[in-house]
Amino acid sequence: MSDSTVFKPLGRRLRLAVIGGGPGSFIGAMHRQAARLDDRYELVAAALSSDPERARLGGQEIGVSLERSYPSGQALIDAEAQRADGAEVVAIMTPNDSHYAFAMQALERGMDVICDKPMTNTLEEAQALHAKAQATGQVFCLIHNYTGYPMVRQAKAMVMAGQLGEIRLVQVEYVQGNRAKAGPSKSAWKDDPARGGPSLVLGAIGTHAHNLLCFMTDLDVAEVAAEIGSIVPDRVTHDYAGALLRMSNGARGSFWITQAATGVENSLRIRISGELGTLEWTQEHPQVLQFKPLDAPAQVRTPNGPGTLPLSARASRIVAGHPEGFHEAFANLYSNAADAIIARRTGQVADPLSLYFPNSHDGLQSLRFVAATVVSSANQGAWTAL
Amino acid sequence: MSDSTVFKPLGRRLRLAVIGGGPGSFIGAMHRQAARLDDRYELVAAALSSDPERARLGGQEIGVSLERSYPSGQALIDAEAQRADGAEVVAIMTPNDSHYAFAMQALERGMDVICDKPMTNTLEEAQALHAKAQATGQVFCLIHNYTGYPMVRQAKAMVMAGQLGEIRLVQVEYVQGNRAKAGPSKSAWKDDPARGGPSLVLGAIGTHAHNLLCFMTDLDVAEVAAEIGSIVPDRVTHDYAGALLRMSNGARGSFWITQAATGVENSLRIRISGELGTLEWTQEHPQVLQFKPLDAPAQVRTPNGPGTLPLSARASRIVAGHPEGFHEAFANLYSNAADAIIARRTGQVADPLSLYFPNSHDGLQSLRFVAATVVSSANQGAWTAL
Amino acid sequence: MSDSTVFKPLGRRLRLAVIGGGPGSFIGAMHRQAARLDDRYELVAAALSSDPERARLGGQEIGVSLERSYPSGQALIDAEAQRADGAEVVAIMTPNDSHYAFAMQALERGMDVICDKPMTNTLEEAQALHAKAQATGQVFCLIHNYTGYPMVRQAKAMVMAGQLGEIRLVQVEYVQGNRAKAGPSKSAWKDDPARGGPSLVLGAIGTHAHNLLCFMTDLDVAEVAAEIGSIVPDRVTHDYAGALLRMSNGARGSFWITQAATGVENSLRIRISGELGTLEWTQEHPQVLQFKPLDAPAQVRTPNGPGTLPLSARASRIVAGHPEGFHEAFANLYSNAADAIIARRTGQVADPLSLYFPNSHDGLQSLRFVAATVVSSANQGAWTAL
Amino acid sequence: MSDSTVFKPLGRRLRLAVIGGGPGSFIGAMHRQAARLDDRYELVAAALSSDPERARLGGQEIGVSLERSYPSGQALIDAEAQRADGAEVVAIMTPNDSHYAFAMQALERGMDVICDKPMTNTLEEAQALHAKAQATGQVFCLIHNYTGYPMVRQAKAMVMAGQLGEIRLVQVEYVQGNRAKAGPSKSAWKDDPARGGPSLVLGAIGTHAHNLLCFMTDLDVAEVAAEIGSIVPDRVTHDYAGALLRMSNGARGSFWITQAATGVENSLRIRISGELGTLEWTQEHPQVLQFKPLDAPAQVRTPNGPGTLPLSARASRIVAGHPEGFHEAFANLYSNAADAIIARRTGQVADPLSLYFPNSHDGLQSLRFVAATVVSSANQGAWTAL
Repeated sequence: MSDSTVFKPLGRRLRLAVIGGGPGSFIGAMHRQAARLDDRYELVAAALSSDPERARLGGQEIGVSLERSYPSGQALIDAEAQRADGAEVVAIMTPNDSHYAFAMQALERGMDVICDKPMTNTLEEAQALHAKAQATGQVFCLIHNYTGYPMVRQAKAMVMAGQLGEIRLVQVEYVQGNRAKAGPSKSAWKDDPARGGPSLVLGAIGTHAHNLLCFMTDLDVAEVAAEIGSIVPDRVTHDYAGALLRMSNGARGSFWITQAATGVENSLRIRISGELGTLEWTQEHPQVLQFKPLDAPAQVRTPNGPGTLPLSARASRIVAGHPEGFHEAFANLYSNAADAIIARRTGQVADPLSLYFPNSHDGLQSLRFVAATVVSSANQGAWTAL
Repeated sequence: MSDSTVFKPLGRRLRLAVIGGGPGSFIGAMHRQAARLDDRYELVAAALSSDPERARLGGQEIGVSLERSYPSGQALIDAEAQRADGAEVVAIMTPNDSHYAFAMQALERGMDVICDKPMTNTLEEAQALHAKAQATGQVFCLIHNYTGYPMVRQAKAMVMAGQLGEIRLVQVEYVQGNRAKAGPSKSAWKDDPARGGPSLVLGAIGTHAHNLLCFMTDLDVAEVAAEIGSIVPDRVTHDYAGALLRMSNGARGSFWITQAATGVENSLRIRISGELGTLEWTQEHPQVLQFKPLDAPAQVRTPNGPGTLPLSARASRIVAGHPEGFHEAFANLYSNAADAIIARRTGQVADPLSLYFPNSHDGLQSLRFVAATVVSSANQGAWTAL
Repeated sequence: MSDSTVFKPLGRRLRLAVIGGGPGSFIGAMHRQAARLDDRYELVAAALSSDPERARLGGQEIGVSLERSYPSGQALIDAEAQRADGAEVVAIMTPNDSHYAFAMQALERGMDVICDKPMTNTLEEAQALHAKAQATGQVFCLIHNYTGYPMVRQAKAMVMAGQLGEIRLVQVEYVQGNRAKAGPSKSAWKDDPARGGPSLVLGAIGTHAHNLLCFMTDLDVAEVAAEIGSIVPDRVTHDYAGALLRMSNGARGSFWITQAATGVENSLRIRISGELGTLEWTQEHPQVLQFKPLDAPAQVRTPNGPGTLPLSARASRIVAGHPEGFHEAFANLYSNAADAIIARRTGQVADPLSLYFPNSHDGLQSLRFVAATVVSSANQGAWTAL
Repeated sequence: MSDSTVFKPLGRRLRLAVIGGGPGSFIGAMHRQAARLDDRYELVAAALSSDPERARLGGQEIGVSLERSYPSGQALIDAEAQRADGAEVVAIMTPNDSHYAFAMQALERGMDVICDKPMTNTLEEAQALHAKAQATGQVFCLIHNYTGYPMVRQAKAMVMAGQLGEIRLVQVEYVQGNRAKAGPSKSAWKDDPARGGPSLVLGAIGTHAHNLLCFMTDLDVAEVAAEIGSIVPDRVTHDYAGALLRMSNGARGSFWITQAATGVENSLRIRISGELGTLEWTQEHPQVLQFKPLDAPAQVRTPNGPGTLPLSARASRIVAGHPEGFHEAFANLYSNAADAIIARRTGQVADPLSLYFPNSHDGLQSLRFVAATVVSSANQGAWTAL
């Protein structure tokens, strides 16, 4: 990644609209920064708030014209679809319960879609949305941003190249402390089970952990034995989930997530062991991939260091030894999606290395995982197939 | 800890006999080094091998007289029990399936016992041995050496002092790669389910993980939902075990152990989260205890650094910044046990800080855990009470 | 930092031109990404190559119009200065020996300047350029990008707030391996002492280390005792420099830089000790600032974690626990400069927290340090005042 | 290392006497633990205090008979030399200014000597003592305990095996905070320049840093440009020293030590770069040796892990993944010395791998380094040959 690849094939940037992510939203700013970093998008329209005045002011703050600052996602999609210079891509970063509706509408209007995770709140919606995405052939990029890190992609590439041999054992944890205190969440919808999905913690971070595990191992989760619940007193929505895993190739695994671990910032950590070696990665030091081969000294792999495989090299913008972070990983998904969108819209074949972004199939797999986990927990931890 | 505390009350060192740990045994040398470090023991007798000639030569190599180099544990216990200057303490470091018999015999002859883990192979033996230890009032020290680390004891002391508040979430992993390759083990008894116990991996490292978790949290495991098995092809004995945990206070947890993670050396790692903070410790860097308090910067605690509590201070022999390791942790158990033994034999009251070594009750608890885990795994992961 | 602050006061983005950084240049792409991230700039003109055809093609690739893709920096400055919609800001990322000329020309034409380091090759040029910048009152931002990291700014803020007390001891090292192999450099000008400045290693990374030290300690280097040289056989230009330091307040220090340390990626590391505590930071894990206070446990500070001071908070775009890196630090300087430029051009007062970017005074100080180091080394390490 | 090697050749342990290290002394207990760990020594005599009553009580506490608890080192040496069962080895752990006299006396009486560092306070004493040790042929082991760490020995062995190629660049730092506070030291002699040597900080930790550097690189320091001084207000004795180094093969280096870095525990850190790779080691995590080879991924070497060389393997008692620390490194020197002593006394040839302990030549080299550093500092940092 680096500078834009849009000017040559397209002569301009892709026209992007955003729904959600209004003033003060961390994730909204992150999406827009990610869209800008590699210069493949021009932000032309926004629906930042359901309050018309806040929508207008918010648009102004980020350089969107008054005319194209919409008071709702629906309005945005309707209006932009009718403009000759309308948005070609819609990025959705609203609360979980509206992802489905906006994504369906955008797909129906011929737009390509970038959608925050979880893809939907329910498995049924996920199935319908995946079917729609497949039917239209439009691009659907699901923002599991951790898959954008260079060393995550290095791990995936090493696994796919057989450097680990058959995968045997996996562990993934995603531990945070941002819900360790009792009391209401900052965002009211997160305390409303009807809006936050069947399991808040699974939607919020469990889908990340599941997706990352599948991405890095090139495997699916086949069966799960799980417990989900709330450990903080007087809390309704889930704040932890544990599971044992059986992977599609027979590998065994451990899955542990929580948002109630006091003082822990963002410990997303994964270990993958195969016949020939073990890989370890932790999100808080994303530039380090530990590789522990059979009968040879442990290695510390870094972006663009010796042994870097093409999928990883393409995901990094730096020379070895300089840190990249969350923004760059996030931007990789936006830029991968842009490459796919441009290829589709210009009738070209996209660079295969651009196509490793999570899509609606991955979103559906995560919702299957959520559903099976909920069932298993309700059945006293019984092994449940996805 | 540091120099001996035996000369003042006793005028001499405690007389120690060892059963097992012959020439070439890592754990045998470790026990003897641990016994020497703080100068509380004199090694007077040994049964290092069932081969009489090897037993004699082995004894000679470690400075034990010919006369007291026995060809069997039974012979050692019988003969030493009849000597006026006989061994007062017997340390057992034989394969798992003989711990029970030697420990029972030693207790019956009035000896204090130091025993390697797992205490026994079966729950029934564990119950009988614990009952015997209680009935005799003799000292029974079970070598879960990880409980001897200064920062493990600091963690326990912080938990007991309420610095974490109510414990909510726990995670323990013990991951090794020493059985990652297919084929027979170095020690034949480890491939024989009849000798290695109901689950080799649980006996070998699972009891360590269980014991450490209970030690540090001051809690018991109440229920377990588990799977155990063999992931390396063509292996009979278990090489991995995963479990979800419900602790005695309602805390939830994750447990993951394996000896089949290629290239991983000895990753015993624990995280304990309470209402007021989280503690993290990993055996490979034992001098570091991370404390992540609620709403305050994360701290790095080290032995004898600021905030050290007495239980930890007493477990360290160094000034802050100098590393201690496996030997010193191991020696702490030997020295704690010596203090308890001397107090018992001289009719004194032992320093309460000496009494935090694992005992037959802890050994019994671990065997209960093993048994419940085996049952749960056989019942498709059903929650099983200990 | 996050979204743009230009739309409200200016109604549009600042018009930026770049000189240097053509296709394939890491640093060119980095500058443009940094300019884009916070949406304060629009790239309107470029002089990417002295070859007119390469300049045109390069401009096209990055979305600059043919008309404003210039074959030289001089041509760019001349033409843009005459346009009503001409570039307001010029960013210079050419080889070291042309920084001076382009920066002087831009300042003379009323443009604000962003300039890569080292500011100039000689002390005389640095003095002249600083004088010019002061005389014009225009903004001059020198890209010592390491000063943009949130935890570097946290350190500076803690020092300025007195949390370390009087600074006593400092250490800075900048160790790389990118010139460990004998033979010519990738860029020919780096092997030409006439173009690379009096000491290549000091210009390339020594000015970074010097600037970072002064930035974080809020002190100047007063005297230096140094040796510079070439350790790789048959090399003409310098590849290492060591120095002892006396700081302006009497603190003592150590300075060590090299580009010849085989296999080392980019170890820029700093330790600052004061009466009340020590701070440690290393560029390869930029999100971690270790604080070791007097008589209290060591702390691990992270962006937006507890204890974050405003200067640091403003330099970060994330929630605690998510990594930022080189791009974000770099972008902070661009965005700080933009805030200063907009304030100047609109007659407003800039937010004081925006004004901590390195400027021409800092550039001059680094050139003084380089000059004194060269003199000291030539005088057998004699202490030399800056 | 592991169990004793004395019983076979000698039929008993070596008889050891200690001078210094009385009750409450950290270093005294450490010496005795180190002597015990591998069971090569029996402690038979002690002079723990110049106060006769304290000497007697101290002896009793550590199991030394009343008769052989001496009120002075002189008395001990005189009396033990006349006993048929007298001490064969004397270990000296008194304040620096008496090392010379006790060591000379012991050598003159035919005893082997283990001596704490610095060997002497002055260069003249060091020369005389080294000459005496050479003349007698007795064993003189100088306790630079850091040379006993398995990974330090691995580094030395890798360097000697040519795995780094020609050494080019070295860095060593030894940074502590134990004298960061103003006011008197715990031990009064440390504030008395007449007793603490020409430079307290150089004697206390500088000789460690110098010795470690020479040990690991297999090189000498040839020239030094230095500054030493006191940074804590109102302090007479030195608390920091910085130097630039020229090594005997032309390599260049940086040296930085202080005991006044508030809050830092014991940061002894070394980096060695050669044509083929770089090694990095830090005392606070002694089990990790980082190896960064040319054009290959960085490696993490650990004791007994893949690639372990014999000199390192022999210095470790554990299986890979289990931590060793300060005691074991310390004990390695005691056990190496014992092997040399037994070989000498029995007329055998010692295992060459036992002979890498620091000796009187190394002690002399360190005193030369101290002297040259003092001269250079007095001469405004002028390069000074050792």
